[in-house]
Amino acid sequence: MAEKKVSRRRAIGLAGAGVAGVVGASAVGASILADKSEKPTDTTFSDAIAFHGATQAGIVTPAQDRLHFVAFDVLTKDRDQLVQMLKDWTAAAARMTAGQDAGPIGATAGILEAPPDDTGEAIGLPPSGLTLTVGFGPTLFRDSSGKDRFGLAARKPAALADLPHFPGDTIDPAISGGDICVQACANDPQVAVHAIRNLARIGMGVVSVRWSQLGFGRTSSTSTSQATPRNLFGFKDGTANLKAEETDLIKEHLWVRPEDGPDWMAGGSYAVTRKIRMMIETWDRSPLGDQENIIGRTKGEGAALGQAKEFDEIDLVAKNGDGDPLIPVDAHVRIAHPDTNNGAHLLRRGYNFVDGSDGLGRLNAGLFFIAYQRDPRTHFVPIQTNLARHDAMNEYTRHVSSGLWACPPGVTGPDDFWGRGLFA
Amino acid sequence: MAEKKVSRRRAIGLAGAGVAGVVGASAVGASILADKSEKPTDTTFSDAIAFHGATQAGIVTPAQDRLHFVAFDVLTKDRDQLVQMLKDWTAAAARMTAGQDAGPIGATAGILEAPPDDTGEAIGLPPSGLTLTVGFGPTLFRDSSGKDRFGLAARKPAALADLPHFPGDTIDPAISGGDICVQACANDPQVAVHAIRNLARIGMGVVSVRWSQLGFGRTSSTSTSQATPRNLFGFKDGTANLKAEETDLIKEHLWVRPEDGPDWMAGGSYAVTRKIRMMIETWDRSPLGDQENIIGRTKGEGAALGQAKEFDEIDLVAKNGDGDPLIPVDAHVRIAHPDTNNGAHLLRRGYNFVDGSDGLGRLNAGLFFIAYQRDPRTHFVPIQTNLARHDAMNEYTRHVSSGLWACPPGVTGPDDFWGRGLFA
Repeated sequence: MAEKKVSRRRAIGLAGAGVAGVVGASAVGASILADKSEKPTDTTFSDAIAFHGATQAGIVTPAQDRLHFVAFDVLTKDRDQLVQMLKDWTAAAARMTAGQDAGPIGATAGILEAPPDDTGEAIGLPPSGLTLTVGFGPTLFRDSSGKDRFGLAARKPAALADLPHFPGDTIDPAISGGDICVQACANDPQVAVHAIRNLARIGMGVVSVRWSQLGFGRTSSTSTSQATPRNLFGFKDGTANLKAEETDLIKEHLWVRPEDGPDWMAGGSYAVTRKIRMMIETWDRSPLGDQENIIGRTKGEGAALGQAKEFDEIDLVAKNGDGDPLIPVDAHVRIAHPDTNNGAHLLRRGYNFVDGSDGLGRLNAGLFFIAYQRDPRTHFVPIQTNLARHDAMNEYTRHVSSGLWACPPGVTGPDDFWGRGLFA
Repeated sequence: MAEKKVSRRRAIGLAGAGVAGVVGASAVGASILADKSEKPTDTTFSDAIAFHGATQAGIVTPAQDRLHFVAFDVLTKDRDQLVQMLKDWTAAAARMTAGQDAGPIGATAGILEAPPDDTGEAIGLPPSGLTLTVGFGPTLFRDSSGKDRFGLAARKPAALADLPHFPGDTIDPAISGGDICVQACANDPQVAVHAIRNLARIGMGVVSVRWSQLGFGRTSSTSTSQATPRNLFGFKDGTANLKAEETDLIKEHLWVRPEDGPDWMAGGSYAVTRKIRMMIETWDRSPLGDQENIIGRTKGEGAALGQAKEFDEIDLVAKNGDGDPLIPVDAHVRIAHPDTNNGAHLLRRGYNFVDGSDGLGRLNAGLFFIAYQRDPRTHFVPIQTNLARHDAMNEYTRHVSSGLWACPPGVTGPDDFWGRGLFA
């Protein structure tokens, strides 16, 4: 399907039916953005991000502010039906990331006798930097009984080996795994939710929502153009994250190479998702000095202990006056550091979450961790094994959900679709 | 406590300890807002809203974009301890709404041996229009066994009578009721979450979190300066909402008058909260015409059926060519209209929510309804009785949480505190 360069703003003006009497496209288009007391109009913040490309958007894209992540179970046993849905999804994703309705008719311009092909809650909202990133879980290739559901078992990447159980894991299967995931990131949560909801609508009968997660504040920078945000421990998070501009490291650690195999994953990346509950009430009772020693950075500036500034190089060898390491042996920055992990770098783009409360008088809060890498077996798995064993932060965290996803290369144009290489 | 006019931006610059080497206050202050690819810098959007005043902010204040609502249970039996916490909360609320840390020391400037008096995740973020609005639930006056816990039973407003069970209600007690609520609204969710989290931290041992709810998109305008947003049915919501500028209606329907009694509620208002799950998957399969007949408005423009524009007067009498009412007898706008409810108006300031999924393949999504009024017995209760019996929309909604709150008048200055009148 050819993309029409018509945004939701203009689409509603063109729609005609149902909007009779509107002063003009601009009146509706301006919509919620119209008044100064309302949402800001920074164009970079609200612009579209290109959907088509050699790699998927939403990975090295400067991390947007809001997340709606969803994992689907595939219901159908019919491979063709699944492929058709992926084609339909791709067309809708191309439209929505451009700020258009999910379908060519739209939320309001259809006949009264049929359900609209868009759900409407994003009418008048700009593209808001929406990216939609797809991934395939291990169970799509073989289900838990070992069955090759769609003739894909031979194409399963070796790198998509199930994650091990890590020490301390308290994973809830109901909010873990899944056959297909979609990561929606945007600067307006209504736009991210709209996108996931419309994909679920399009997939009705073919897939069903297994679990989904909203995140409200990015916890990593993925570009040197971004300031480092803070997680719910109150610390800057992602200072040492792999960034889009570090092209050599990106090449080495992020994108799957042709020689890594399988073919259909070249230019793709593997995502690991972990919902990490934080015991924030306990953390909030910890002395500032303890917090800084656990993280290995100062809370204000975010400098590694012993350094002055956030981006000063970490010195893992330096000792204090007593001859003890300046950065404690169990500090998070030490255990997670590439030097402690055979040089492995992750590209993280996690989000803070608060899911109400836990029935025990505490906020159900934490970090929804998302990390992209060339091979989880050499990256996330050894790093997390190290962290799970040694990180002082473990006293304040609990991993409750886990996911592993093979994210294929980008959709290169209107004739391409999510998973074309896999199903070829 | 006198308010110091120091924002978090500047506070971190002044803090000194832990931020050595920072280029200056502005470098840290600009923080996440620094770069163009990041959050917008519209000052109205990020400015502070006055905390002190005759009425509480967060009611007629133009509805901000994000919500974190929390209900607390009071744990202590000691009235003085409760009063002291309310004083401490008020001081922290005055600070945080001004964009300052929760406590006078702050997140990073304290001694290393003590927990900080702010949790730090809002460092560098502007006030973001934060309002904090407090309310007292029926159980604060008498617990479920009828006990007068704090000598307040005689001061319980008659208007705070328990809500009845409405037809179709499926209320979950675990996410309903509570002794004290705080509504945090802001244009940045991290700022709203930070405020609730710090109040919970300050209240540790005195109160505990009973339930809490995040909302990501306001579903009503409370000012004529705001465009009407859309709810998750994809329709404009709140077109006919009571607005700050309608001063006569506000006087008549919103604020408690001295003659209404009790004294301590004069200038206050009553809030009703309802978590309304929407069956969005079913809705999305409904034809456009059915959706419009259920709501009684067009989906695009939001005009009442038979009218051209959103704000055209609703005509409840008009008939179509067949002699049937243009606005169906069970349409939501008809049943909720003041003319159908003895002229009663509510000031609504609800929010969309998505709380992951429901384990049955559906998004757990809907509307967190908040409405303020002078007396729920003459406003919410008869309107909701009418809606519960007749509204065609009921097929697509389910009320799962309910709360009722006496929100006292505003805090008038540094010596006043939340609930001073009640505990006088």
